[in-house]
Amino acid sequence: MAATDREAQAMRQALLLARRGPRGVNPQVGAVLLSPTGETLAEGWHRGAGTAHAEVDALTRLAEEKGADAAVGATAVVTLEPCNHTGRTGPCSEALIAAGVARVVYAVADPGALSAGGAERLRSAGVDVVGGVLAAEGEELLDSWLTVQRLGRPHVTVKWAQSLDGRAAASDGTSQWITGPDARADVHRRRSDADAIVVGTGTLLADDPALTARRPDGTLYEHQPRPVVIGTRATPQEARIRRHPLPFLQDEGDDLPDLLDRLRELGAHRVFVEGGPTLASSFVRAGLADELLVYLAPTLLGGPRLATGDLGVATITDQRRLTITTIERLGEDLLVVATPEGTP
Amino acid sequence: MAATDREAQAMRQALLLARRGPRGVNPQVGAVLLSPTGETLAEGWHRGAGTAHAEVDALTRLAEEKGADAAVGATAVVTLEPCNHTGRTGPCSEALIAAGVARVVYAVADPGALSAGGAERLRSAGVDVVGGVLAAEGEELLDSWLTVQRLGRPHVTVKWAQSLDGRAAASDGTSQWITGPDARADVHRRRSDADAIVVGTGTLLADDPALTARRPDGTLYEHQPRPVVIGTRATPQEARIRRHPLPFLQDEGDDLPDLLDRLRELGAHRVFVEGGPTLASSFVRAGLADELLVYLAPTLLGGPRLATGDLGVATITDQRRLTITTIERLGEDLLVVATPEGTP
Repeated sequence: MAATDREAQAMRQALLLARRGPRGVNPQVGAVLLSPTGETLAEGWHRGAGTAHAEVDALTRLAEEKGADAAVGATAVVTLEPCNHTGRTGPCSEALIAAGVARVVYAVADPGALSAGGAERLRSAGVDVVGGVLAAEGEELLDSWLTVQRLGRPHVTVKWAQSLDGRAAASDGTSQWITGPDARADVHRRRSDADAIVVGTGTLLADDPALTARRPDGTLYEHQPRPVVIGTRATPQEARIRRHPLPFLQDEGDDLPDLLDRLRELGAHRVFVEGGPTLASSFVRAGLADELLVYLAPTLLGGPRLATGDLGVATITDQRRLTITTIERLGEDLLVVATPEGTP
Repeated sequence: MAATDREAQAMRQALLLARRGPRGVNPQVGAVLLSPTGETLAEGWHRGAGTAHAEVDALTRLAEEKGADAAVGATAVVTLEPCNHTGRTGPCSEALIAAGVARVVYAVADPGALSAGGAERLRSAGVDVVGGVLAAEGEELLDSWLTVQRLGRPHVTVKWAQSLDGRAAASDGTSQWITGPDARADVHRRRSDADAIVVGTGTLLADDPALTARRPDGTLYEHQPRPVVIGTRATPQEARIRRHPLPFLQDEGDDLPDLLDRLRELGAHRVFVEGGPTLASSFVRAGLADELLVYLAPTLLGGPRLATGDLGVATITDQRRLTITTIERLGEDLLVVATPEGTP
């Protein structure tokens, strides 16, 4: 039987509940338990890695209030397919079966290699299961988390600003104000979407960036990316990064996939590689750039200070072709957003 | 008295006559002599440097047909202000006065430092003078010639193709097909607008370009730019440039303003600098680039083969800011057309 109007309504509530949980290594999930007559028995949501999953949270609440048998015959409306995996908590599919739930309605299928199969497990236990209810809304909620599942690592945006002829600075290293205020505001807005912001020690020592995401009036966006410094040189005591609202990580940068694994485990979905040229080139060369933001200033600089270094292109057939997503004028500057071809 | 309808009609004819002459070091000019009752007495046009100016051409024809006094009281309708300068021919203003012309109607004022002042000379001799008749049409006809007068040299377009990150080739020098067929067709169309096409010996020896302007089907455009090779290395006997419909010039390239002077004297209004990077950078560094065509391929190459070299930008305040005129998508590529700021 397809989902009823009452179940769809409960799914909307479950999507709201999901947002109460944090965006992190685990998905944001919400659950509503309905009685056979459509009354809300309990609500639950996931509060982050190591805490109860949403279904179990709702079942536990219901059991505490109304006793162990209160869920018998109930319908569980959940934003993500109940898991079939024993991790830090037991599988939700087993918990639902054990509680006597008769029907499960979910929005998004679990994409996890280990955790998927919950719907099948439930069906084999005689539970009625309907998937894909408000799937689009569910996928929108989980967008960046689903990307992490698909990529097996956080999504990486590599940003740089350059002159039209590909330079990051004049010959003496000066580069202030190559791009204008609209381009800089755009960078900050995009930083505020990221969970981590990565910078090389060269840039850190040369520019002393704050690595916060700031509105044009200087105030901080609500969501700040966690600063990550790549390199072996020490971060000075007076560096502005030490006044960032989130503590910075420092990493040698000799194993970027490992770094991304660790950032994923810390809950990062989106990583913003801020520069400089050496670090940006490392990510591109390693095939770890999912999105490029190239801010082009209408100027020529010539000389040796390049915005990209060695990308491992020895001959033209090795070139790193891009698909250009958008080209936008930002004041006098251009922003080219592109995806490397062959990016997963 | 403002120009009459008949005079405007005669000016349209004079503009058509002008186009019979060649585009070159001298302007294309046409002239129509009208009787006081508005009949066409004679027509003339300028056939290029060293030949009679249009007014004198018409006066001569009239005198041959109808005798020395036939222009007395006539009106001369000329597309350009009659000159006041003794060059390879005598001043037209004097010839018109001597012939007894009573009235002169012209379209475009003479911008020449030496040749201007014809209208004043005519007025001081009692001739009725009206300027600016169909001035827009006259300026359109003389567009590139007027630019040469304003700049004091041919107009220079500098073109290059690059990867998004400013490289002209991969590390081993290979560069074929960075840009696609639409970008290449655009280059050829623009070459066909130029009177000279300039290439360095490095590019000549590496790429052996034909330097013709070809349609996508391989046929030649009617107007071909004259090939100019810059550098001291010899042009090989088997070079494709030797099969160009126009003979090539070779120049050491140590004095670009002098080269442009010589191209101007050869009648070039528009010079197209085809490359490579060293030559393009020389024109930009010397402030001799009036227009830049930067074809951006959606690819990253990294490495040492740069599309621009040293542009003389030691520090950021020396940067060569550009005004972007247009950004166009050509297939998968982008064309950025820009003008260096401060270009005359």
